[in-house]
Amino acid sequence: MKILIINGPNLNLLGKREPDIYGHQSFEDFLEVLRGDFPEIEITYFQSNIEGELIDIIHLAGFEVNGILLNAGGYTHTSVAISDAIAGVTTPVLEVHISNIYKREAFRHKSIISKECVGLISGLGLDSYRLGINYFLLQKNKKS
Amino acid sequence: MKILIINGPNLNLLGKREPDIYGHQSFEDFLEVLRGDFPEIEITYFQSNIEGELIDIIHLAGFEVNGILLNAGGYTHTSVAISDAIAGVTTPVLEVHISNIYKREAFRHKSIISKECVGLISGLGLDSYRLGINYFLLQKNKKS
Amino acid sequence: MKILIINGPNLNLLGKREPDIYGHQSFEDFLEVLRGDFPEIEITYFQSNIEGELIDIIHLAGFEVNGILLNAGGYTHTSVAISDAIAGVTTPVLEVHISNIYKREAFRHKSIISKECVGLISGLGLDSYRLGINYFLLQKNKKS
Amino acid sequence: MKILIINGPNLNLLGKREPDIYGHQSFEDFLEVLRGDFPEIEITYFQSNIEGELIDIIHLAGFEVNGILLNAGGYTHTSVAISDAIAGVTTPVLEVHISNIYKREAFRHKSIISKECVGLISGLGLDSYRLGINYFLLQKNKKS
Amino acid sequence: MKILIINGPNLNLLGKREPDIYGHQSFEDFLEVLRGDFPEIEITYFQSNIEGELIDIIHLAGFEVNGILLNAGGYTHTSVAISDAIAGVTTPVLEVHISNIYKREAFRHKSIISKECVGLISGLGLDSYRLGINYFLLQKNKKS
Amino acid sequence: MKILIINGPNLNLLGKREPDIYGHQSFEDFLEVLRGDFPEIEITYFQSNIEGELIDIIHLAGFEVNGILLNAGGYTHTSVAISDAIAGVTTPVLEVHISNIYKREAFRHKSIISKECVGLISGLGLDSYRLGINYFLLQKNKKS
Amino acid sequence: MKILIINGPNLNLLGKREPDIYGHQSFEDFLEVLRGDFPEIEITYFQSNIEGELIDIIHLAGFEVNGILLNAGGYTHTSVAISDAIAGVTTPVLEVHISNIYKREAFRHKSIISKECVGLISGLGLDSYRLGINYFLLQKNKKS
Amino acid sequence: MKILIINGPNLNLLGKREPDIYGHQSFEDFLEVLRGDFPEIEITYFQSNIEGELIDIIHLAGFEVNGILLNAGGYTHTSVAISDAIAGVTTPVLEVHISNIYKREAFRHKSIISKECVGLISGLGLDSYRLGINYFLLQKNKKS
Amino acid sequence: MKILIINGPNLNLLGKREPDIYGHQSFEDFLEVLRGDFPEIEITYFQSNIEGELIDIIHLAGFEVNGILLNAGGYTHTSVAISDAIAGVTTPVLEVHISNIYKREAFRHKSIISKECVGLISGLGLDSYRLGINYFLLQKNKKS
Amino acid sequence: MKILIINGPNLNLLGKREPDIYGHQSFEDFLEVLRGDFPEIEITYFQSNIEGELIDIIHLAGFEVNGILLNAGGYTHTSVAISDAIAGVTTPVLEVHISNIYKREAFRHKSIISKECVGLISGLGLDSYRLGINYFLLQKNKKS
Amino acid sequence: MKILIINGPNLNLLGKREPDIYGHQSFEDFLEVLRGDFPEIEITYFQSNIEGELIDIIHLAGFEVNGILLNAGGYTHTSVAISDAIAGVTTPVLEVHISNIYKREAFRHKSIISKECVGLISGLGLDSYRLGINYFLLQKNKKS
Amino acid sequence: MKILIINGPNLNLLGKREPDIYGHQSFEDFLEVLRGDFPEIEITYFQSNIEGELIDIIHLAGFEVNGILLNAGGYTHTSVAISDAIAGVTTPVLEVHISNIYKREAFRHKSIISKECVGLISGLGLDSYRLGINYFLLQKNKKS
Repeated sequence: MKILIINGPNLNLLGKREPDIYGHQSFEDFLEVLRGDFPEIEITYFQSNIEGELIDIIHLAGFEVNGILLNAGGYTHTSVAISDAIAGVTTPVLEVHISNIYKREAFRHKSIISKECVGLISGLGLDSYRLGINYFLLQKNKKS
Repeated sequence: MKILIINGPNLNLLGKREPDIYGHQSFEDFLEVLRGDFPEIEITYFQSNIEGELIDIIHLAGFEVNGILLNAGGYTHTSVAISDAIAGVTTPVLEVHISNIYKREAFRHKSIISKECVGLISGLGLDSYRLGINYFLLQKNKKS
Repeated sequence: MKILIINGPNLNLLGKREPDIYGHQSFEDFLEVLRGDFPEIEITYFQSNIEGELIDIIHLAGFEVNGILLNAGGYTHTSVAISDAIAGVTTPVLEVHISNIYKREAFRHKSIISKECVGLISGLGLDSYRLGINYFLLQKNKKS
Repeated sequence: MKILIINGPNLNLLGKREPDIYGHQSFEDFLEVLRGDFPEIEITYFQSNIEGELIDIIHLAGFEVNGILLNAGGYTHTSVAISDAIAGVTTPVLEVHISNIYKREAFRHKSIISKECVGLISGLGLDSYRLGINYFLLQKNKKS
Repeated sequence: MKILIINGPNLNLLGKREPDIYGHQSFEDFLEVLRGDFPEIEITYFQSNIEGELIDIIHLAGFEVNGILLNAGGYTHTSVAISDAIAGVTTPVLEVHISNIYKREAFRHKSIISKECVGLISGLGLDSYRLGINYFLLQKNKKS
Repeated sequence: MKILIINGPNLNLLGKREPDIYGHQSFEDFLEVLRGDFPEIEITYFQSNIEGELIDIIHLAGFEVNGILLNAGGYTHTSVAISDAIAGVTTPVLEVHISNIYKREAFRHKSIISKECVGLISGLGLDSYRLGINYFLLQKNKKS
Repeated sequence: MKILIINGPNLNLLGKREPDIYGHQSFEDFLEVLRGDFPEIEITYFQSNIEGELIDIIHLAGFEVNGILLNAGGYTHTSVAISDAIAGVTTPVLEVHISNIYKREAFRHKSIISKECVGLISGLGLDSYRLGINYFLLQKNKKS
Repeated sequence: MKILIINGPNLNLLGKREPDIYGHQSFEDFLEVLRGDFPEIEITYFQSNIEGELIDIIHLAGFEVNGILLNAGGYTHTSVAISDAIAGVTTPVLEVHISNIYKREAFRHKSIISKECVGLISGLGLDSYRLGINYFLLQKNKKS
Repeated sequence: MKILIINGPNLNLLGKREPDIYGHQSFEDFLEVLRGDFPEIEITYFQSNIEGELIDIIHLAGFEVNGILLNAGGYTHTSVAISDAIAGVTTPVLEVHISNIYKREAFRHKSIISKECVGLISGLGLDSYRLGINYFLLQKNKKS
Repeated sequence: MKILIINGPNLNLLGKREPDIYGHQSFEDFLEVLRGDFPEIEITYFQSNIEGELIDIIHLAGFEVNGILLNAGGYTHTSVAISDAIAGVTTPVLEVHISNIYKREAFRHKSIISKECVGLISGLGLDSYRLGINYFLLQKNKKS
Repeated sequence: MKILIINGPNLNLLGKREPDIYGHQSFEDFLEVLRGDFPEIEITYFQSNIEGELIDIIHLAGFEVNGILLNAGGYTHTSVAISDAIAGVTTPVLEVHISNIYKREAFRHKSIISKECVGLISGLGLDSYRLGINYFLLQKNKKS
Repeated sequence: MKILIINGPNLNLLGKREPDIYGHQSFEDFLEVLRGDFPEIEITYFQSNIEGELIDIIHLAGFEVNGILLNAGGYTHTSVAISDAIAGVTTPVLEVHISNIYKREAFRHKSIISKECVGLISGLGLDSYRLGINYFLLQKNKKS
């Protein structure tokens, strides 16, 4: 089973940027733990600050992997193009957010991409990703 | 460990109401499965169509149990009073939705209660509840 | 043939409350006249000021009776939950209003429940109910 | 007793236009049935696609007939001038719609003319007209 | 000197319609007085309830007469097409209103045609027309 | 002289809930002090988290007592039905709030019930209630 | 007969400020011409850039003179206080503007004071004032 | 092959009205050129300033000709009734505009009829019509 | 104990202006009664129609007196500058209104200054001021 | 004659993505046909999912080629930067869309770039491109 | 070279009012430093809390000095009249703010006067003024 | 002392693009002058049309240099992601604009990034950059 985690803009600063919102752990460290916890899943990871590169990777993986976890960062609230990319591929995409975006500024309350995603997990810290992987596992077990 | 699941208006019709959106399983059947899967957790359940009774139960449990999973149904989008109830108790409340509310009518895109909840899991069918329980387990394991 | 009339908040004050808008007759007196005029129909009646009890009765009757006349009073303009209840049952629900809600304050111009109802009769005084019953009769005659 | 039925733009296409919304019967056929069912009433009929001609007929009949049933079609949502015409005459005007306008596009949810009409019957198919005639009969019987 | 007065929808009811807003005098009676008071001016008059006929007359007169007084009635607030007609001709058009449109419903506060007119006289009863003629006289005297 | 104090949702948590906004005293303790300070007035008290029960009590008391102090809590901002209840009774209702609702979230700045109340006292802590009783006393002295 | 002309902020710059909008003549020069043309009327004049001084003069003259012509300049669009002052006095106030405010920025399209004035003359250059005086003369002649 | 070109209000002034926006050529002259360039197509032409006459012609031709080019002029932005007419006929309607409506006032940016048309060609001068005819030719060639 | 009462624009007309809203008593007469009722308090009074003079007096008194009662009249709804002045001083300011501003025009429902004031008393006639003084007395007694 | 076709985000998926909206043909296949049909024109093609690369190519070609056909995909509705790029170059840019964007979600109805383009062709499938090339040919023939 | 610094409402409290936003230095102290740093420039200073006095000084200086630095305080967000004053004079006016108005309440994000000013310097503390003087110096050196 | 100047989309066209708004000088030429005027400062420069590359450079420099001058061009009004990048680094970022964005289209009046920047200098041509460097110099001198 293959799952791709995609992180959008500024998430490369994780552990360094606004730690009271995003925590002190870097995403790479977390990824290692995650892979240890789910040895049966091939978890790949992609991060870019460039909107179009996020679209490129969704196109690339969106007909290959079993599930995509997408934290589109600031593009969540502005990118019609990423939303269209999600709609254009066959792999289900699950939207995740580390912080509870509803506790923050009003412009973060509106996600443009949610309607094209299979669902949303938000506000649970890095566990948002972990539960996302759980979700794809549950789905797989139902089918098999 | 004690977790309370609260379902709001019309969720008593689950399995009967709009099955293309909500599925064919009744919540009681699902609850039995859930309790089987998490034998170490005491899962209690409350459903009411009355806004104020949802507030009452939040008050009652909100200083007692370890976590509350709340699917406030239609009150999600209109109830300042439930939002205030969540803010007024100490137990963390996790908002869950069965359907992806962003694929539906515009008035369902705005949740009044999200900002007082610890996080949100939406659109993953009944698995939204299951992952919510997973979340509280993860939190407990971190502390212990 | 069974028809249920449901009146929402403050309609228990009919005849007593703002008689220049709602008239001087109590609903109970009117009901008696109505039953006399339609002896072949079993007309039941329910009134509550509690939103959730209106939902409960819609659930209860909404798979049993032939038609529901619903005057949701002030909840007409605020209740997503009642709207969901109407969508969740199989009996057709006809929205009625005594006063012409478009002659009154702007917030009364928007009904949240109309889109789930079969239709709307508004502004014709207590005759709104009477015509509503006529409608269900016409429907029944078409089928038979 | 004289009642005038006024149909606005595109209602001449009835039976031909979007039959899933408006049905397969032409209005002229329906009118014949209606006149048969209410032999004691003189039912006249006027249709025009021209906003100003609708105003002209309201002026002409609005001091003569006992009641006007008005389905202003698309002008319902845009015509201040028709609304002013209704306000300017003494005959009561009852707004009718064939389809439930609240199930359709948002711009159809707002009627500019409702506040000048005596009431509104919407969504009940051609029965909206029939019940409108019933209403004027009920009113007449109360007076006599 | 030639001046055309154009009255839009429902102004044919003047003296008959809502006399507390518009007064008891018919426009024809007033016109006679006006012509008596300005014998040196050729005052012509046109009224129609049809938007497109108002456009036609603006086109016809709008390259001929010295000034147009336009009371577009309800079309004031909705007609882009009349606004375009005014912009398309060379005769200056002065907008007049009998009632103070700012004391009435909110939708009457916005005039779509004002920006294409030379100016606006509103709320002064039938004197709004008289002062409009005064204006064109003043302009003529300045030029000569 | 009889005065009824009605507290809406979550005010049963007073002294326990968000004490930096609402203070540390329970309402019951405060009520005792209040009764001691106004021995000549019969002060009754009702609290419910259920919107419809607040309507019921307004109906019940609204033709009996001399004044009602209403803190509708979260329903202040959403309940057309409570607003209608106030409009439907003869006892004057005075709106009170403990906190200054204008210092808080934007959705708390709009009260739906204010227009039906005799007036508003907001932001003065529990003294908002005390001054409300003062008001009814002043009114009574003026009449006698 | 006494008429007061009140000019608001920046109108002291007339003839100097933005001459393509407001013309090259100073208001004082125009005033002299005006007084020459209406020798039977006592025309007084007041200009201030201070909102409160405009209110003071409205209070002072508003129970004394026969008519007030008010060009409130930029305060037209922002001053609830001036609007209240007009409502508070007995002399009719006529709103005048030199330029056509509807040809300019959108924020100039909304006048806060119009609803309290007897009427509005806008866009006719300094003739707006002259026609305003004509109006008060016409009114006086009707009464006498 | 039959194509009908429909021009709405003020387009009869073409060549005469605002030539910097619409050019100096009359539509009749252009039509002759067009017919010369497409001798195999029967191009008919209709212009009216009356909204309802535009609806009438759409009804008349809308079940007969192969394509309709519609420039609804100012009605583009206000006419629900024309939009309904387009939806009610079977001939595909292509919306055309001479000027780029997005370079002009904001109220011209919203077309009410676009959603019912097959497509839109805007801003290309009279070539908008010519390309529209090209489109219908391309469609025909695909079918044959 | 020193309390300053500040009245904003048009309140000098009290007893004279719109008596159905504001009553027939002048504020000076009321002030005398008030001083008689609270002999232990030094009540000073300031009224101005000039926004900036209200700011000046807030600055002057805002570090000296024990409480300020402010009825900012029409500036309540427009003055960021007065709001800033309240925020800039140390004396608590209590907002008062004579009329229930929520029963009046929509633009009066929004107060710009409320968020900087300690609280609000509205709609209780001149008793709004009296209860305001009561409030400051209560506060003083708590401290001493 | 040189024409550049620029396709924005997700248009590389053409033929693969949502074929009910965009058809089954890949753009490369279509391009070949197009070049065959217009052998006299040098048609170059560029696609990128990266907003800034679209800007780069507009800069590069925007002083060189005779015309640009731009389908900015999802950036149509969000990119001020692309709009500025179009405004900054001398080559005319023609906006094209494959689908009728007015039949789709509301956020697709607003194009940020239209006002800087020479015109718009929308909803005609891949023929939108073909007609765009026709347009540039027509323009060239007029000049020569 | 002459530069006038104008400070609007509440800026006389500088050093005293909300020091965490505006700092602890009084403007007079800062002015002395500034004059010491720019001995070649005649820096005059004016402060008023009265909107109209700010307009008066702009009129007075606006044809005399070389540059005006204007911090209009709370009037920045509400004063059309000051905006008009800036537009009416010939001296360039540079808008300055001490605090970053975009970090504060939403109503402070919109400046009504910016569009008439030559530019804006905001958020740099008292250095906003200093850099403003630098700007006028740079401009002067370019000309000479 | 190290300062980085970042220019966003289309600013590479400076001197070439819309010279009436942006002037005729290329940024590179200006940069040379600037470096000559501030020899003690190491001024580096980066330009990109790609949003994500602007984020990358902010990340890279944002923990290294002493100050960043950012002209984000069209991304100013749309990029939550750049705003987040500024919030995520420790170097202060000063927003600069060449033109006065408030004299231009409405969508340019709202900057999404301002709230995360230390301040804003707008409308002063290329001097906006020069004054920005002055600001960082002033800050440095204060510290040392």
